[in-house]
Amino acid sequence: MTMERNLWRLKTRPNAKVRFGEMEYRREPVPPLQDGYFLIETLYLSIDPTDLVGMQEIEQYFPPVRLGAVMRGVVVGLVLKSRKADVAEGDLYMGIGEWADRIVTDGASMSRVVPPKGMPLSMMFGVFSLVGLTAYFGLLDIGKPKPGETLVVSAAAGGVGQIVGQIGKIHGCRVIGIAGGRTKGSFITDELGFDAAIDYKSEDVGARLDALAPDGVDINFEQVGGPVMEAVMNRMRLFGRVPLCGMISTYTNNGAGYDPAAWVILMRRLTVKGFIVVDYHERFGEATEALARWMGDGRLKARQDIRVGLEKAFASTVDLHKGANLGKLMVQVAPDAAQL
Amino acid sequence: MTMERNLWRLKTRPNAKVRFGEMEYRREPVPPLQDGYFLIETLYLSIDPTDLVGMQEIEQYFPPVRLGAVMRGVVVGLVLKSRKADVAEGDLYMGIGEWADRIVTDGASMSRVVPPKGMPLSMMFGVFSLVGLTAYFGLLDIGKPKPGETLVVSAAAGGVGQIVGQIGKIHGCRVIGIAGGRTKGSFITDELGFDAAIDYKSEDVGARLDALAPDGVDINFEQVGGPVMEAVMNRMRLFGRVPLCGMISTYTNNGAGYDPAAWVILMRRLTVKGFIVVDYHERFGEATEALARWMGDGRLKARQDIRVGLEKAFASTVDLHKGANLGKLMVQVAPDAAQL
Repeated sequence: MTMERNLWRLKTRPNAKVRFGEMEYRREPVPPLQDGYFLIETLYLSIDPTDLVGMQEIEQYFPPVRLGAVMRGVVVGLVLKSRKADVAEGDLYMGIGEWADRIVTDGASMSRVVPPKGMPLSMMFGVFSLVGLTAYFGLLDIGKPKPGETLVVSAAAGGVGQIVGQIGKIHGCRVIGIAGGRTKGSFITDELGFDAAIDYKSEDVGARLDALAPDGVDINFEQVGGPVMEAVMNRMRLFGRVPLCGMISTYTNNGAGYDPAAWVILMRRLTVKGFIVVDYHERFGEATEALARWMGDGRLKARQDIRVGLEKAFASTVDLHKGANLGKLMVQVAPDAAQL
Repeated sequence: MTMERNLWRLKTRPNAKVRFGEMEYRREPVPPLQDGYFLIETLYLSIDPTDLVGMQEIEQYFPPVRLGAVMRGVVVGLVLKSRKADVAEGDLYMGIGEWADRIVTDGASMSRVVPPKGMPLSMMFGVFSLVGLTAYFGLLDIGKPKPGETLVVSAAAGGVGQIVGQIGKIHGCRVIGIAGGRTKGSFITDELGFDAAIDYKSEDVGARLDALAPDGVDINFEQVGGPVMEAVMNRMRLFGRVPLCGMISTYTNNGAGYDPAAWVILMRRLTVKGFIVVDYHERFGEATEALARWMGDGRLKARQDIRVGLEKAFASTVDLHKGANLGKLMVQVAPDAAQL
């Protein structure tokens, strides 16, 4: 008798009419087990914001799920049968699998897990999983929290958000969580110890931020994009940091309406940093030395565009913005006799 | 007899009708020299893209120039008379001054300069000035160029751009400069040794980038904003870096039409970094250890939202995007017996 499995296939991509697309729940034969593959029984399927991205044909970390294909998802499961070396019945595996209760895989996107004794297996999707690691590295490595700083985390009651906020508290930050509804708000403040919660569904996020953080925000752990992101970004302090972890509010837009620059920054893991040179004033000596050396070697040339007479100042500005200059533009106001 | 000076006053701010605003060139008495002040003769006035920002009432590094006030600008000048300790006649000073041939200042935004013997004083606005330092730190500290990488620099023939490209070459990058017109293009390639030039005035920047850098761009030294920035950003490679130095193409927009997120990033010198956790896989051990320690100490809690039954997967995704979950959402597909 052929073994069967339950699974979900992607039927319609999310689009303007069908916000979440359509999925079909089916019972089908389990594919044959070939050499180099193993069969797992799915114990837990993780439900992640990016599932919805995978259903769409837009730029993303992995190729989009093909129309009609079994939906992709993160699973943890038990090996029932193995035709792959080093994979034994009874082992636990976790990684990118399918929305199915039985999965045949070569294990390329999975790894064996051995949860600590007594820890519920479901915790593999929690603190001790990519969720906990995302919070850890995003906040500490990119956010670089310092005691007394103000940290805002959006999707604050979710898997990543709740850990981000708590790690922020451990590092001495004032933590403001943005989440929808009172239940979530009291969960993150009363149970998790966040300093404040903003309910984006019933409150004006910008006005609440102005009240809660009148001096602005040092770190925005960004997970939602859209108007909530805009409200936080407009209240960032000088030298703030923005770990851009997700843009969940835009995932159901079918590619429309999201901030294209932020999307590219997120998907390609870019680093964008605004700067003005005086921020580096303590290291000017080092730079001047290097520049002089390169000039001396003839490896660095400089072209200047010098206009004579203060009365030319305004026209020079206009030229600059029309691109009608070549090299560093300046006005000579008086003869350079002092120098010679 | 009162000493007089020539100067420029801001008459009209740039607006929808007067793109560059209006300035008035006048002859007026030099203000009296009070204790703690000194008088300089302006030798050079630097013409900078941000001059135009200062004329507008928008978010910027310094307060906007008041309407009717003498225009603010970077100058280098010679001390004619001093009533300030440690400032002597004949000294050279550089810093934020006025569009005027004589300036009375307390020197708060100026510093004394001693140019190397034989170097034209005008070079103080070039390589050995904030211009050279901007190129140096922006490219090396934020751009972090590696040999063989592709660097794109916009406003490539300008003060900063020409130095950025040459430092890029010194560090082994392939350098593509974007500048308007053939003269600038052949200047940066023939004279400065850039690998290629794109003329944004007559060429399709995106198409040219596709041809010149089919594998994409590693570093975008961004100075112009707008459609040129968009074309480069859409061609960034994974883990690319974007030193955001200026958005000159938007400075004449009077606050309309620029990318508000990028403007905030620039003016407040934010760091925005997209990431996914697998980028940190080599450091997972360190993180897991810390998370476990915090859990053990009771400083870190985790809430999970577990739905039972694979058939609930799709509805769970919909709930996730409606915010109808509390904590990390997952579906339990089979009993967790394996674990116990």
